[in-house]
Amino acid sequence: MTASRPLAVIILAAGQGTRMKSSLHKVLHPVAGRSMLLHLLASVAELQPERQVVVVGAGREQVEKAVEGKGVVIAVQHRQLGTGHAVAQAHDALAGFAGDVLILYGDVPLVRAETMRAMLDRLARGDEPRAVVLGFRPDDTAAYGRIIADGQGIIEKMVEYKDATAAERAVTLCNSGLMAVRSTDLFVLLDRIGNDNAAGEYYLPDIVMLPGAQSAVIETEAWEVAGVNSRIELAGVEAIWQARRRVEAMRDGATLIAPDTVFFAHDTVLGRDVVVEPNVVFGPGVGVADDVVIHAFSHLEGARVESGAEIGPYARLRPGAKIGCRAKVGNFVEIKKAELAEGAKANHLSYIGDATVGAGANIGAGTITCNYDGFFKYRTEIGAGAFIGSNSALVAPVTIGDGAIVGAGSTVTRDVDAGALCLVRPAQDGKPGWATRFRKKMQERKAAKANGTA
Amino acid sequence: MTASRPLAVIILAAGQGTRMKSSLHKVLHPVAGRSMLLHLLASVAELQPERQVVVVGAGREQVEKAVEGKGVVIAVQHRQLGTGHAVAQAHDALAGFAGDVLILYGDVPLVRAETMRAMLDRLARGDEPRAVVLGFRPDDTAAYGRIIADGQGIIEKMVEYKDATAAERAVTLCNSGLMAVRSTDLFVLLDRIGNDNAAGEYYLPDIVMLPGAQSAVIETEAWEVAGVNSRIELAGVEAIWQARRRVEAMRDGATLIAPDTVFFAHDTVLGRDVVVEPNVVFGPGVGVADDVVIHAFSHLEGARVESGAEIGPYARLRPGAKIGCRAKVGNFVEIKKAELAEGAKANHLSYIGDATVGAGANIGAGTITCNYDGFFKYRTEIGAGAFIGSNSALVAPVTIGDGAIVGAGSTVTRDVDAGALCLVRPAQDGKPGWATRFRKKMQERKAAKANGTA
Amino acid sequence: MTASRPLAVIILAAGQGTRMKSSLHKVLHPVAGRSMLLHLLASVAELQPERQVVVVGAGREQVEKAVEGKGVVIAVQHRQLGTGHAVAQAHDALAGFAGDVLILYGDVPLVRAETMRAMLDRLARGDEPRAVVLGFRPDDTAAYGRIIADGQGIIEKMVEYKDATAAERAVTLCNSGLMAVRSTDLFVLLDRIGNDNAAGEYYLPDIVMLPGAQSAVIETEAWEVAGVNSRIELAGVEAIWQARRRVEAMRDGATLIAPDTVFFAHDTVLGRDVVVEPNVVFGPGVGVADDVVIHAFSHLEGARVESGAEIGPYARLRPGAKIGCRAKVGNFVEIKKAELAEGAKANHLSYIGDATVGAGANIGAGTITCNYDGFFKYRTEIGAGAFIGSNSALVAPVTIGDGAIVGAGSTVTRDVDAGALCLVRPAQDGKPGWATRFRKKMQERKAAKANGTA
Repeated sequence: MTASRPLAVIILAAGQGTRMKSSLHKVLHPVAGRSMLLHLLASVAELQPERQVVVVGAGREQVEKAVEGKGVVIAVQHRQLGTGHAVAQAHDALAGFAGDVLILYGDVPLVRAETMRAMLDRLARGDEPRAVVLGFRPDDTAAYGRIIADGQGIIEKMVEYKDATAAERAVTLCNSGLMAVRSTDLFVLLDRIGNDNAAGEYYLPDIVMLPGAQSAVIETEAWEVAGVNSRIELAGVEAIWQARRRVEAMRDGATLIAPDTVFFAHDTVLGRDVVVEPNVVFGPGVGVADDVVIHAFSHLEGARVESGAEIGPYARLRPGAKIGCRAKVGNFVEIKKAELAEGAKANHLSYIGDATVGAGANIGAGTITCNYDGFFKYRTEIGAGAFIGSNSALVAPVTIGDGAIVGAGSTVTRDVDAGALCLVRPAQDGKPGWATRFRKKMQERKAAKANGTA
Repeated sequence: MTASRPLAVIILAAGQGTRMKSSLHKVLHPVAGRSMLLHLLASVAELQPERQVVVVGAGREQVEKAVEGKGVVIAVQHRQLGTGHAVAQAHDALAGFAGDVLILYGDVPLVRAETMRAMLDRLARGDEPRAVVLGFRPDDTAAYGRIIADGQGIIEKMVEYKDATAAERAVTLCNSGLMAVRSTDLFVLLDRIGNDNAAGEYYLPDIVMLPGAQSAVIETEAWEVAGVNSRIELAGVEAIWQARRRVEAMRDGATLIAPDTVFFAHDTVLGRDVVVEPNVVFGPGVGVADDVVIHAFSHLEGARVESGAEIGPYARLRPGAKIGCRAKVGNFVEIKKAELAEGAKANHLSYIGDATVGAGANIGAGTITCNYDGFFKYRTEIGAGAFIGSNSALVAPVTIGDGAIVGAGSTVTRDVDAGALCLVRPAQDGKPGWATRFRKKMQERKAAKANGTA
Repeated sequence: MTASRPLAVIILAAGQGTRMKSSLHKVLHPVAGRSMLLHLLASVAELQPERQVVVVGAGREQVEKAVEGKGVVIAVQHRQLGTGHAVAQAHDALAGFAGDVLILYGDVPLVRAETMRAMLDRLARGDEPRAVVLGFRPDDTAAYGRIIADGQGIIEKMVEYKDATAAERAVTLCNSGLMAVRSTDLFVLLDRIGNDNAAGEYYLPDIVMLPGAQSAVIETEAWEVAGVNSRIELAGVEAIWQARRRVEAMRDGATLIAPDTVFFAHDTVLGRDVVVEPNVVFGPGVGVADDVVIHAFSHLEGARVESGAEIGPYARLRPGAKIGCRAKVGNFVEIKKAELAEGAKANHLSYIGDATVGAGANIGAGTITCNYDGFFKYRTEIGAGAFIGSNSALVAPVTIGDGAIVGAGSTVTRDVDAGALCLVRPAQDGKPGWATRFRKKMQERKAAKANGTA
């Protein structure tokens, strides 16, 4: 999907984001577990741009840190003088670049690479439009700027809502703000626009109506250019993303019993004939192979699940969890940086962290790997076919050999040999009648308390 | 927001509620964790009424108990003779009162104080309407009574749907039933209305059309006067309430990743930059400070969470839980009447009840505070910086000193000194080859059973 | 609801189901925990048919296994030559049968018995229509075949969308494909239809337009004939089913605080004044008596809950769980093949499997019944009024007598007498100052590691 001509991308991210009421920069708020800015950069990456410039106002450090290593140049707009002025701040960062420039918005994160590509393709067509604007037709055209265009998408007029006539307002094609322009034109045009308007700002769309050349519009669906100015809109964009991802998962052959209750991350991968029950949350970094069942109320993050495995209900897989073929992780079980080999089971109320569990091993209910001493983490190795009795604590570093058995309730501090039984258990002590006497005494005490005589 | 003139409120709650199919009085069914009646009384309280009368039919005791200490007088309508008759039952309770009377419905719980106030303000205007009726324009006007009014809101006619002409039915302004009237007029007017209709009932709205004076209507949005006659409508009112509360939470600066999956109680308080993941339930009495993350599948009730803390996933905070700054409560952890000081952690599979946990203390996976002996509850005190090994049971009353370490798997029954190590653990006993022999024996037994030779 | 005349049912299930992308036969995909095919058969069973034929293409074995014992004959359509051809494959299976034939579709699972009955009743009416077709009026008529009928439902024309005129396309009555025909007519008519169309297929609806007799249409609501060709449509049918079931539950007197978050199985039974909090999942086989509260995030399957019991939040009841009157199962508790008698409590972090718990017994937090030795399952019997201290492991087979007390942290391997105290606990060992020294040493080690000097 490489762009046919050299490409530079300018992402505007200088808005104050006041309505977010957040100390986090607006474009860093996440959608599907990844910041809006990184969503955009991921789509942009499919076009292999030569340069990427993010124009920020306040919060430069936050943004800089977020894009570290992504080959992004930060440009700063010190005063908020409008979108045209914001784009102009990318001038130095694009010095020496010759090609197409795509102007995006950090708070309009869902635009697809194929749409960006369509804009660039249109810019490259024979009629050589000066700019290509991305238009859309929202359900509620509200106060969006309108695009008046002919049947071929050649723009006759772009007009802000407040300046539009009734006839112009009746036009349903709205301006998303996204634009493609040649680098040779961009800054020349920006120099020509003025700020003779109520807000005293330099508006990027004004370059379209400058005399000398005509521009074109291409259309996309409204969801793709949904913008985020408040947390309500952020939730709206998240909802759009999730709804599309759910449909995709079902199309690819997963059953979502109640799609609206399944939450994906940006990079979730599901195999075929995977069944996802209601109320499942995927954090980033999850891959699930074919024929896996994920029961209700499960939470997976940074985990790999092999084919035929069964997860949950109420299973929590944390980063580094690797669940082998036909292995089972049951209710109220947490797995972290641990591998369950083929057919291993941890079905109830367990914490398995920093561990390897061999093929076919059975981890009893209430088993805890004690992996932390307050300073360092240690590993637990459980052999193939081992049986860990319920309510055991395995104090790492410790190795339980293949086929070994640990008796219920044991706290294991030393290695157990393969095929051995390990029992850590004091003698059982019975005191006949004690409970009866205790109960009598306590009932008397309770009565006394109630009478105020205690 | 005090009403400008003395105010009395009559809340009608005498309906049978048959369609609820419940032994609980209809107006006591909860919305957002608080009964409908108490929702209304909370809104009414903002207007500081001098008298509050609840008119009940059956179920007087239930209602009486629910409003205990709220300064409410109960009036009983022994026979169901219509809304006019129901209001008349408040006569004695209002003896000696002079001022405005607001008539509300116990099963119309979402009316806001500002709307009630607007009704009273209209009643006090110079044209002195006899009554002020609250109108609304529902999406589906259905069989509601219609209000025919002029441009100034002066009512020309109020007509039951069944008696309305086609032209009157085309009017979209409907009667909610809520009304404001002067106390000096109310009972005089009620005496004048008849019951000459199909049901043989006295209808409150009839006072509007009595000769002698004109009444006014003010409008509000339909959601505000949604009524509850069935559990389906109860769920509808809950949904309205939740939808509005979610928007409010986002406006105030909280991120709700999937707003539709977050359930608030009537008194939930969230700080700024709080992130609430999908599937979180707030019971009554929760306060959450700034910068808290509440992970998926968490359930909070009667709990206070300080800034920077991290809750869940799968955390349950019960009444009396106090979670300090930057403290962490992780998966499958229940906290009840317990305080975690700054930076303390209880990350996995624990029950912490009737306890204090010092700053920076680390509670290992599977830790249980044994707070109950079947008769009384006892407290566990864990010092600052203490480290409780996994799978430990702390038998209260017991104190673990500052910086003490409890070894994994210990059942602690006596106090542990600050800085000490406490180990409660029998020697580890290994039986080489035992597991191998056991497995062989059991496999034979299983085979024998399968062959029917056991 | 027996049909008035002998009835045979033909269920077509020969479609490839390619769009499902599944190795499971399409009609075996579940809705509300039961396969679509079994949903249909359950409705059909209300009409007590004499014969039931399922026509399959690929995947015969899967279908055969799924309907084992249901009195179903499988007919195979070896080549996909259209619905008419598919029905013809039932010829041999209906040999000797005389009566009415109802033709259904395995991927149209929601059709109710009363609708089927209405079709048969219409077929039996005096005007003796040749066939009765089930029509519906979808919101989006899309490419459905249209039915042109007179005011009495006598069909004038049935026309495929692609062959329809504009006027015919404007007709909103669509053909669901379901049909009732007399057995004496069916195969004769099928022999008369041709395959002279673009796809070269034999279409069942063509029998309606054959000369010689007239057919009738009856209408039903669109949801009832929703079909499943993809997992997206499967989720759609599940959503329809759940929405209807939720309304029914509320009508019957259960409160669903957030109906959209409660998932029922096909056979869930709820009593009156049951309260179901948000996010509850019912698997098959659950019965809940009156006045039960099911708190958020609970998962019930194959369980019986008696009146006044309290379940959850985060409770998992698995098959064989029987929860007595006023008993309580709390958070992170799993109950499997176990009975809690009246008033018994298991409130926190426990696994109770293959057990009986006596009336009023109290199971402490973190209790595990160790019911499995890797080969066989064993039972735990806990007496009435017994008190099991927290974090105990009960190694089955084992009996705890009535009123006995098990001390916290005990691993119990032998029976405990009624009224006795059982303590399994080593002496507590304290090492003063050890933790302080350990912490110092580890901090040095950590610092050394950080400096690279370790």
